Amino acid sequence: MNDTFLKACRGEEVPYTPVWIMRQAGRYLPEYQEVRAEVDFLTLCKTPELAAKVTMQPIERFGLDAAILFSDILIAVEAMGMHLEFSDKKGPVLSDPVRTKSTVDRLVIPDTEDSMPFVIETIKILRSHLGVPLIGFSGAPFTLATYMIEGGSSKNFLKTKKRMFQNPGLFSLLMDKITSTVISYLISQIRAGAQAVQLFDTWAGILGPEDYKEYVLPSVKKAIAELKKEGVPVIYFVNECAALLKELRKSGADIIGIDWRIDLKDAIKGLGKKCVVQGNLDPCALFLPQEKMEDKVKDILWKGEFARGHIFNLGHGVLPESPVENVAALVEAVHRFSER
Amino acid sequence: MNDTFLKACRGEEVPYTPVWIMRQAGRYLPEYQEVRAEVDFLTLCKTPELAAKVTMQPIERFGLDAAILFSDILIAVEAMGMHLEFSDKKGPVLSDPVRTKSTVDRLVIPDTEDSMPFVIETIKILRSHLGVPLIGFSGAPFTLATYMIEGGSSKNFLKTKKRMFQNPGLFSLLMDKITSTVISYLISQIRAGAQAVQLFDTWAGILGPEDYKEYVLPSVKKAIAELKKEGVPVIYFVNECAALLKELRKSGADIIGIDWRIDLKDAIKGLGKKCVVQGNLDPCALFLPQEKMEDKVKDILWKGEFARGHIFNLGHGVLPESPVENVAALVEAVHRFSER
Repeated sequence: MNDTFLKACRGEEVPYTPVWIMRQAGRYLPEYQEVRAEVDFLTLCKTPELAAKVTMQPIERFGLDAAILFSDILIAVEAMGMHLEFSDKKGPVLSDPVRTKSTVDRLVIPDTEDSMPFVIETIKILRSHLGVPLIGFSGAPFTLATYMIEGGSSKNFLKTKKRMFQNPGLFSLLMDKITSTVISYLISQIRAGAQAVQLFDTWAGILGPEDYKEYVLPSVKKAIAELKKEGVPVIYFVNECAALLKELRKSGADIIGIDWRIDLKDAIKGLGKKCVVQGNLDPCALFLPQEKMEDKVKDILWKGEFARGHIFNLGHGVLPESPVENVAALVEAVHRFSER
Repeated sequence: MNDTFLKACRGEEVPYTPVWIMRQAGRYLPEYQEVRAEVDFLTLCKTPELAAKVTMQPIERFGLDAAILFSDILIAVEAMGMHLEFSDKKGPVLSDPVRTKSTVDRLVIPDTEDSMPFVIETIKILRSHLGVPLIGFSGAPFTLATYMIEGGSSKNFLKTKKRMFQNPGLFSLLMDKITSTVISYLISQIRAGAQAVQLFDTWAGILGPEDYKEYVLPSVKKAIAELKKEGVPVIYFVNECAALLKELRKSGADIIGIDWRIDLKDAIKGLGKKCVVQGNLDPCALFLPQEKMEDKVKDILWKGEFARGHIFNLGHGVLPESPVENVAALVEAVHRFSER
């Protein structure tokens, strides 16, 4: 068992900097495309043998130091009682978005074993096959709330902010229900075998620090505090985190995932040197000539040394257009340049 | 003539904090909608009487301290030789986007008087009517480059970054041509009567600091240095600027426009106290109950005091859905709370 990733999560000495890649099981891999040619995305997420298969694909191909459960952050939202569809053009669509108290009241806090047994099953299959740690994950409460209110992606998240600003009581009721769901969902993943968990807060960066502190941080802190009782590392990834570092320090997360927009050294300075960080190569850097990509890898590895621990990752999900050979070169470069 | 805005631009003492609003002439105003019901967007931009009329509309309605020329950042791109259309759904569409050396070679550096005489004419009309200073503007070179390469808006700007990373020579040729255009275009605006100019770098925040420094900053510095010779204040607005502050200090701009994601005090700390800043209320804050919006205004005004000068603005353009009465309340609140 390769435990470099888990050691780095705990800030322990490691022989090299471990690396995994957000969305590492995905469309840039031809073997993933083959599976997807046979089944739609949601069926893939809900079929344990297939979900486990695609989770393993990047592990088999590259020398990655962790696997991440193949799933989608909206699976738990569907289990809360919303109707979910994936459109190739528009991305996820949640019909009947949350607008009123009655739509919030109708939402349930799902029992993972009952509503999402396929997740538990996938994790169990994976744990019996993987030679690297398995990361479970969930959308963070605010990010899930944006999808539930907007009904999908959004440009300026006006509907979300309107509810948040104009009806903070209802917004807080929604956040509480989502937070309970996230906690229960991730605890189930951990108990099924996930050895670390990541909360994805893709959209928290659309808020200024004051609003983040008021409307988002309390739920995040609550979720992380509960999850930490399970004894596995908790990673909190916030996209566009540069202006929120002071608040992220208070989240209680063991590891903070950093997007690519900020210099990693500045991020560490903002988080404090006792932090463990994950990140943060621009996903587009996979399109650089190899030597230039390696320069960026070296730079990030060097900056990562200023933290108590560093897990290498992209600063956002790998793009579907990414050349597979460059992903291989990236993983290899991280290991080569970071060898102690 | 109300010169509070220009005084604040120069960091001089002012009786109150001046305020203007990005996109203040626009769709949230019923009188603007009336004009647009008769003409399409591009015709409006290119008809001096109408462009001047809509520029004046928010000035007549609110106690704003500056007007901004009604136009679009892609007008100059069209004048460079690209075909521009506005689609209600997709926004701007530039057909035949820049991909190869020949498409870059074909672009011209337009003479404003010849190619965009309507801009000069609009400015002249405005100067004879306005009782507040007139701000001219242009897209910043990188932001214009993204539109020219992507052909419109983009989610991850992969096409832009691919060209930038894989063919830096061609990218730099493109940036040089755009920069010359921006300089010439803004000098023409200034000589026609614009009393300040703003460079909009809407998309520069998609780059990490190292890439910003390498691919964007040199053009911005060059443009700003040339513009400053004309003796009017130069404002440089960068959306998602939180991670780029150290670089923005070097831009040479008289005023840095700050988006809403960052705490204004943190922005000033990053820019240095000698800076003059503009910003940075979340456009969605216009949907807050009035008292809560006022709390945010007070907070920003208080933080603005840490800079050498502060011009109040939103942290991005006002949204079309914004309630007009809340915009009025905002302008009034800025003046009331900032009175010395």
